[in-house]
Amino acid sequence: MSFRKVLVASVAAGLMLAAAGASAAPIFGFTPEHADRQQALEAKFDQALSGEEMKGWLETLSSEPNHVGSPHDKANAELMLAKFKSWGWDARIETFDILYPTPIAEKLELLGPHPFTAALHETPVEGDRTSVQADRALPPYVAYQGDGDVTADIVYVNYGMPEDYKALEHLGISVKGKIVLARYGAGWRGLKPQLAEEHGAVGCLIFSDPADDGYATDDVWPKGGQRPPQGVQRGSVEKMMIYAGDPLTPGVGATKDAKRLTRETATTILHIPALPISYADAQPFLAAMGGPLAPRNFRGALPITYRTGGVGAASAHLLVKSDWSLKPIYDVIAVMKGKEFPDQWVIRGNHHDGWVFGATDPLSGNVVLMEEAKAIGALARTGWRPKRTLVYASWDAEEPGLIGSTEWAEAHAAELQKKAVAYVNSDSNERGFLGAEGSHSLQSLVNQVARDVTDPETGATVATRRRARAQVEGSRPGAREEAKAEAEIAAKGGEMPLAPLGSGSDYSAFIQHLGIASINLGYGGEGEMGGVYHSLYDSYDHYLRYGDPDFRYEVALAQTAGRVMLRLADADVPPMRLAPVSGAVSRYLKEVKQLVEKARTDDARFVALSQSNAFALSDDPTHPTHPPAAETPVEPLDFSAMDAAAERLARATTAFDTAYAAAVGHLSRAQAAALEPVMSGLEQALTAPEGLPGRPWFHHMVYAPGMLTGYGAKTLPGIREAIESRRWAEAQAYIAVVARTLDGYSSRLEQTTTTLAAK
Amino acid sequence: MSFRKVLVASVAAGLMLAAAGASAAPIFGFTPEHADRQQALEAKFDQALSGEEMKGWLETLSSEPNHVGSPHDKANAELMLAKFKSWGWDARIETFDILYPTPIAEKLELLGPHPFTAALHETPVEGDRTSVQADRALPPYVAYQGDGDVTADIVYVNYGMPEDYKALEHLGISVKGKIVLARYGAGWRGLKPQLAEEHGAVGCLIFSDPADDGYATDDVWPKGGQRPPQGVQRGSVEKMMIYAGDPLTPGVGATKDAKRLTRETATTILHIPALPISYADAQPFLAAMGGPLAPRNFRGALPITYRTGGVGAASAHLLVKSDWSLKPIYDVIAVMKGKEFPDQWVIRGNHHDGWVFGATDPLSGNVVLMEEAKAIGALARTGWRPKRTLVYASWDAEEPGLIGSTEWAEAHAAELQKKAVAYVNSDSNERGFLGAEGSHSLQSLVNQVARDVTDPETGATVATRRRARAQVEGSRPGAREEAKAEAEIAAKGGEMPLAPLGSGSDYSAFIQHLGIASINLGYGGEGEMGGVYHSLYDSYDHYLRYGDPDFRYEVALAQTAGRVMLRLADADVPPMRLAPVSGAVSRYLKEVKQLVEKARTDDARFVALSQSNAFALSDDPTHPTHPPAAETPVEPLDFSAMDAAAERLARATTAFDTAYAAAVGHLSRAQAAALEPVMSGLEQALTAPEGLPGRPWFHHMVYAPGMLTGYGAKTLPGIREAIESRRWAEAQAYIAVVARTLDGYSSRLEQTTTTLAAK
Repeated sequence: MSFRKVLVASVAAGLMLAAAGASAAPIFGFTPEHADRQQALEAKFDQALSGEEMKGWLETLSSEPNHVGSPHDKANAELMLAKFKSWGWDARIETFDILYPTPIAEKLELLGPHPFTAALHETPVEGDRTSVQADRALPPYVAYQGDGDVTADIVYVNYGMPEDYKALEHLGISVKGKIVLARYGAGWRGLKPQLAEEHGAVGCLIFSDPADDGYATDDVWPKGGQRPPQGVQRGSVEKMMIYAGDPLTPGVGATKDAKRLTRETATTILHIPALPISYADAQPFLAAMGGPLAPRNFRGALPITYRTGGVGAASAHLLVKSDWSLKPIYDVIAVMKGKEFPDQWVIRGNHHDGWVFGATDPLSGNVVLMEEAKAIGALARTGWRPKRTLVYASWDAEEPGLIGSTEWAEAHAAELQKKAVAYVNSDSNERGFLGAEGSHSLQSLVNQVARDVTDPETGATVATRRRARAQVEGSRPGAREEAKAEAEIAAKGGEMPLAPLGSGSDYSAFIQHLGIASINLGYGGEGEMGGVYHSLYDSYDHYLRYGDPDFRYEVALAQTAGRVMLRLADADVPPMRLAPVSGAVSRYLKEVKQLVEKARTDDARFVALSQSNAFALSDDPTHPTHPPAAETPVEPLDFSAMDAAAERLARATTAFDTAYAAAVGHLSRAQAAALEPVMSGLEQALTAPEGLPGRPWFHHMVYAPGMLTGYGAKTLPGIREAIESRRWAEAQAYIAVVARTLDGYSSRLEQTTTTLAAK
Repeated sequence: MSFRKVLVASVAAGLMLAAAGASAAPIFGFTPEHADRQQALEAKFDQALSGEEMKGWLETLSSEPNHVGSPHDKANAELMLAKFKSWGWDARIETFDILYPTPIAEKLELLGPHPFTAALHETPVEGDRTSVQADRALPPYVAYQGDGDVTADIVYVNYGMPEDYKALEHLGISVKGKIVLARYGAGWRGLKPQLAEEHGAVGCLIFSDPADDGYATDDVWPKGGQRPPQGVQRGSVEKMMIYAGDPLTPGVGATKDAKRLTRETATTILHIPALPISYADAQPFLAAMGGPLAPRNFRGALPITYRTGGVGAASAHLLVKSDWSLKPIYDVIAVMKGKEFPDQWVIRGNHHDGWVFGATDPLSGNVVLMEEAKAIGALARTGWRPKRTLVYASWDAEEPGLIGSTEWAEAHAAELQKKAVAYVNSDSNERGFLGAEGSHSLQSLVNQVARDVTDPETGATVATRRRARAQVEGSRPGAREEAKAEAEIAAKGGEMPLAPLGSGSDYSAFIQHLGIASINLGYGGEGEMGGVYHSLYDSYDHYLRYGDPDFRYEVALAQTAGRVMLRLADADVPPMRLAPVSGAVSRYLKEVKQLVEKARTDDARFVALSQSNAFALSDDPTHPTHPPAAETPVEPLDFSAMDAAAERLARATTAFDTAYAAAVGHLSRAQAAALEPVMSGLEQALTAPEGLPGRPWFHHMVYAPGMLTGYGAKTLPGIREAIESRRWAEAQAYIAVVARTLDGYSSRLEQTTTTLAAK
């Protein structure tokens, strides 16, 4: 067939497939009769699931603090090991030795006329049974800050994001030599001390403002579910967007004898001391501040006038000192060998370490993973075996830096890149709506699974409920363009697009470092869980009231993730549809081009405003401000390589999807065996060996956590971030790199299509 | 000339005129040599202006409470009468007797487990000398509420606007039989008790939330300029959008023997009791409330969880009792007869009554009006006389309902409609940027005056500074379409459009009831005046710190309003350019059509959401909500009459502007005399005798205060408000009324153009 004819034919086939996907009958990747068998299997799987059982495990696992290095962290790993074995899995614990600082000394004082010493402590509260163990927890801290003992004036930097520093410059406020006070929100926690350090600050405090996370959002724990005045959000501030995992062993597993960097040469550790504090501790500092009135978007919900400080400011003394010794971590790995393709691995993971008790984060997800493993064990006892190998992993040390998963992925990199079909992650799970992010090759699979799981609260399918929400959200006045587009797709009953993966849970090493197709699944959006995130109060009692009180969404997640695993394991051909990949790439390409256009418009506006002296003339001379500095003007960018690559990709995915639909169930055993590693390796063709600018650990050219978002994903990151930071030469260079990568992917696809068609 | 040729020629002429308007040379409405003479006159006028003098008057006038009926209110009128006379004006006091309720008893208590009695009192503060007279002021109250003694549960209704009631319905909360607690903001104060009453509430409390008006916006008085915890915003809740002025004498002057309605038959008085309260008084009520969590946009800056109440709610006892006797008011009227056209009146007004001391509101504007009159008196002593008659008026009883100005306008309606060329209003005045609103026939005049006044802070012209601000505001991320359009005009150096007049000061009767071209002028936008608005603390001391500390913007307003008055008085032909009128009408017509389109899109979306059951499916069943009710679907509207009228108007204004430019200075004395009343009557051709739907007092078909905005203007109100409320038949009827009115205006213009051209 000629090119053109292929295109037309396969577009039609693609539409048919999409239409078929919306009906109830087949399962993607299975012949009709195999689909019947699969549905029967899934029904049996569902029958083995028990909310009560998960509830019991959750209570046990969250009964004591289980941070990295704690006795209960190790005990939980050993408990799981025994369980996996008892369910018939081939299980083991893999241990790594990682740099994990734990606080030895912390002090924070307000100096001056109204001295105040911060409590830095979360107190036990009535109705939260484990909170009496407060003293067995580590004190609130952020991992991988810099340690230090500093005394300086304080500057309030709002969320501490780049635009906040611009706003402060506008007011003539510098943080050089100061301690910054930032509130949680708007960007990942670790960016706050990092940007503070880059701007010359000597220390960083991060507090939870009640506007975002406290009484303004609802009644506080234990009256309600929200963050109480003394509650503190712990967390990691490791620069995971440079590389994830142990700071001392980038790219390799932190095994006993691994070659290690020193703390000083590790590039993911900060240099200035930092502490997270409660809003009760923050208020006296904020109230004491002088300086200009804080801009409107800096204002939180404390009953004070928010000022920036920096001029006639309050002064503070901050001390943080940590134990920087190596600590052991325990990954629990359970394997059930595939009967047809034992060297094709479908991997499922959730972490088990928490900041304190971690009932929601991560144990609500971890007990689901256990329940799936138990149910799969029960299926296996009936004689069934997966076609492909299943690997269930409960990671340690996710909280400090996705370390358990990353070290394991790095230690087994070569084998994983050869064998891994996909990685399926979960973490916290609550009542609500299905959230799904990940590789677009798995979008159709996820959508079909969502069609086959019933929402516990409404009795509709979770797909229908997710569509309903998208429709309502997208119809709100002022909804963002993205939400409107999703609402339109939802209204037409189309496939809901997967959000891209950034960072923040254990999929990072799999997708972004190794190029293994990954998805992250979880329910949420109805509870009031934010209020205890990473605090002493993320407890079993809180989860029972606000997480998923009757464990029905725990069962729903097991049904969802379990189906994804079972279908990936048993499909005739690994269930990947690739039109969503080219669709996503085209959308992202359009977006980055719009960024350039926007930068051009901004430039023109800035020049006009400067030339007419409008900044100075519109200023209040009693509160003078500094006009914004001129930015590097937009340089011409040539997108033709990307345009061509995106077009070729669109043709290649359409051809593949058509060939795939025709081939399922019609391949010889030898053909299928030959195809398996090709299919599982497809996502790796979206990686480039040189990685992203300044962070070679990140190989994926379509998804990455943003350098200035931390968790939030940036798509086509090499191009997009260069444009956003106005590094035009780098943008042009990555247009070439990404286009080359996409061409490689298309080429691989074209070959695979030929293989599929040769039935 | 054929139609087409006229059009082309006059468009070109219009462009030339606009271009000329941007250069420095001529003064609009004057021949070049008359312009020279006028500029010399204005220079002399400027020399007579003294900030120090205004400062002294401000201190005297604001030294005691001057609310309607107070001894000092009368004393101020008498002081001004003496001043005007001493400056050579023919001055008198005109007295009216109006219904003006003053509080006799007020009580507000929180019942239940944590009882609390509201203070309802503003205390003296250090550094605010007049605040010690707190007990000589009326207690905080709102005028024309209903009186009553009620005990009921409380519901928090956010700003108490229509969309807030929709949000409450969504949560299943009704205010029927309840006392509502509303915060100030988002819409005119009087709408809050009115809408509460319409929704079945039995009482209404209005408080100033610190998020909008208190510590969140800056330090509070006397440390800073913002509203202190005990500060209360008084104000009128008379339904001025039905008719302004004395509630008992709609349409006629409240003279001794006027025929009066009774209090019960007056349609502008509320029926339920209402009280304004401070945020110190509001907090215990808000903190005691149960019920659902208040929606995000309901949340203010008090350190509590905002809930709606209404379910397990707090209960309150509210008592308000007033003295409803008639009170005398004192308008000071000063006249300087015109030497050429004594029957052509140019009127200037500002009120002199305040809620307490009223230093900013209204006296900062009133002393400017006095200063202008003094300077004009000085010019008159040099032998100069205005060509047209000048009328300077200091109104009483603006605060309760624009009463002094309205009664005077109604009492002299026939004479005013015959003689008034224009009405020029001011009110509060502070440091900052020139604000100008009003009839578009005066837009070019105002723009030219702005070009000729120097901004005290920057040395640029106030026009340049206003443009700079428009450019900066319009370039902010998320700027509204209107702001972006203004920024574009500003960047090109074009005429800044006048904002339309709604309500809120004394122009209402002139423009909207009588159809007299009006403008409202004032500086502002740099100070921190909001915090003492309508409170005990709107004092001389506050004005000295935060209003206009060195009285330079007081001088600037005198220069601005004085120039407008002198040019209107002395121009060869009254300085009206009409392209801005047709431009505004076209813009407004486009907007109302877009409203219909938007309603159509909303309908379609609502149907889709309802049919897919998306509202119920996206709900959290533990916090169930009520889906929005279906609205009357959009019916087809025929805009062709308006389209034709707007096109004819565009042609007519262009032809007029061309003829005007050619005629200035070339008319015979007889022609000029004949033209005068035609010109001054032009704006009246924009009125319709039937008035607006449900409010026949409002005759203007282009501008009105909105029925659901109170102060905020609605343009093409008969059509726009019918569309907004989905009264389709009414919208169609007013398309006809407005089109007929515009055709009448065009016809009048066409005749005037002929008169002008017949030189």
